[in-house]
Amino acid sequence: MRVRATIAYDGTDYGGFQLQSNARTIQGEIERALLRITGTPIRILAAGRTDAGVHAEGQVIAFDTTWRHGVGKLRDALNALLPDSIAVFELSEADPSFHPRYDALSRCYRYTIYRAEVCHPLYRRYSLCVTRPIDLEAMRLATRAILGEHDFGGFGTPPQGDNSVRRVLKASWSQEGPWLYFDIEANAFLYRMVRMLVGTLLRVGHGALSPEAFAEVLVTQDRRRSGPAAPARGLCLKAVRYSTD
Amino acid sequence: MRVRATIAYDGTDYGGFQLQSNARTIQGEIERALLRITGTPIRILAAGRTDAGVHAEGQVIAFDTTWRHGVGKLRDALNALLPDSIAVFELSEADPSFHPRYDALSRCYRYTIYRAEVCHPLYRRYSLCVTRPIDLEAMRLATRAILGEHDFGGFGTPPQGDNSVRRVLKASWSQEGPWLYFDIEANAFLYRMVRMLVGTLLRVGHGALSPEAFAEVLVTQDRRRSGPAAPARGLCLKAVRYSTD
Repeated sequence: MRVRATIAYDGTDYGGFQLQSNARTIQGEIERALLRITGTPIRILAAGRTDAGVHAEGQVIAFDTTWRHGVGKLRDALNALLPDSIAVFELSEADPSFHPRYDALSRCYRYTIYRAEVCHPLYRRYSLCVTRPIDLEAMRLATRAILGEHDFGGFGTPPQGDNSVRRVLKASWSQEGPWLYFDIEANAFLYRMVRMLVGTLLRVGHGALSPEAFAEVLVTQDRRRSGPAAPARGLCLKAVRYSTD
Repeated sequence: MRVRATIAYDGTDYGGFQLQSNARTIQGEIERALLRITGTPIRILAAGRTDAGVHAEGQVIAFDTTWRHGVGKLRDALNALLPDSIAVFELSEADPSFHPRYDALSRCYRYTIYRAEVCHPLYRRYSLCVTRPIDLEAMRLATRAILGEHDFGGFGTPPQGDNSVRRVLKASWSQEGPWLYFDIEANAFLYRMVRMLVGTLLRVGHGALSPEAFAEVLVTQDRRRSGPAAPARGLCLKAVRYSTD
């Protein structure tokens, strides 16, 4: 059967989602657990290949297995074998044609910023601490420019053979006390795109780049005027949307 | 001058607050930073010696220094030199007789529990995940017994030469969605006392110990019926109270 699962992970100590020969990866840990549980090498598919250090609360994976003891027991076996930094929240049988990447309508990411005079040691693992003043209205103004379909080549790299046009469905900043959240939903993302957008928008917020100059990067794809990428630790893949959900 | 500072730390990677020869400690890191800043060895005093792995948001320390460049600059220099896992929130000149431990009226600790069917990777560092059902009313009933002055010898060890009588001023459980908080304020605590109380109260919550049997530990100081201590990662020293504040 084809299995679909929603997983969460703390990306801090991983070299990213995708299998690598020289680093611990989320994919590597899950495939290792599946091999131990089923006795068979299993390759997993994922909705998004999150970068080194990026977290997830709603990554979606799929794989094929001949497991016959029920999906609940497979979830429990995975959670028992996986390190504490990776968890399987939901696991169900899916249509044999289900593909977490190709079938996804959109991905939702959140970037978390903590604003304070002194950075908080207990928040540093899952957010970016910003001690300098931020002009949130300037950032909101600049953010409007990214809504819709654009060539985001100035803010990231597409996978080989792909173009860099993406459709941003939602992008907004919200504030809760010292917390500042950037929520973005797009049909798909370029490599490093959210972190490049946040890093460049922070330069707008710090007054180093005008909202107009930000918008021009979308037109010119001039990477000398974008970035630097915001640190991975503030980024989390919150959800992946499918037409069947 | 005598300096007083409120500090926060992520205790995960430390062998506790107090200086040790064979482990990284909070005290060791702060004294090392002070030596680099001032060029003079400085010994710091603290309100509470938190255990290995325990966090703090309101630990209070004090030390003497001949620093002449203002308290704001000393705070900034410390935060620049300290690892990200330790921060100085406030720093001010104190009365030369100020002693963070002897002058403290009380300490406030919070123990954080996350309740869910599957443990969340992003919450594991600062809370205990409990997947089994908890009878919160039974735990609240048992908790009433610890209010006031008691011999807590059944729940921890006093420092050498001290007795094990402590006065608990407040102790309560509160719930916010999946989060369960145990807040306790006492004039002082025995070594491991909060974690032993939480661990034993969880046994009450799981039905393995009656509230009456819990109360008996306070009378008999019988350590065979208490514990095990809840893990350090859920515990945080939130505040220290002084008569002068």
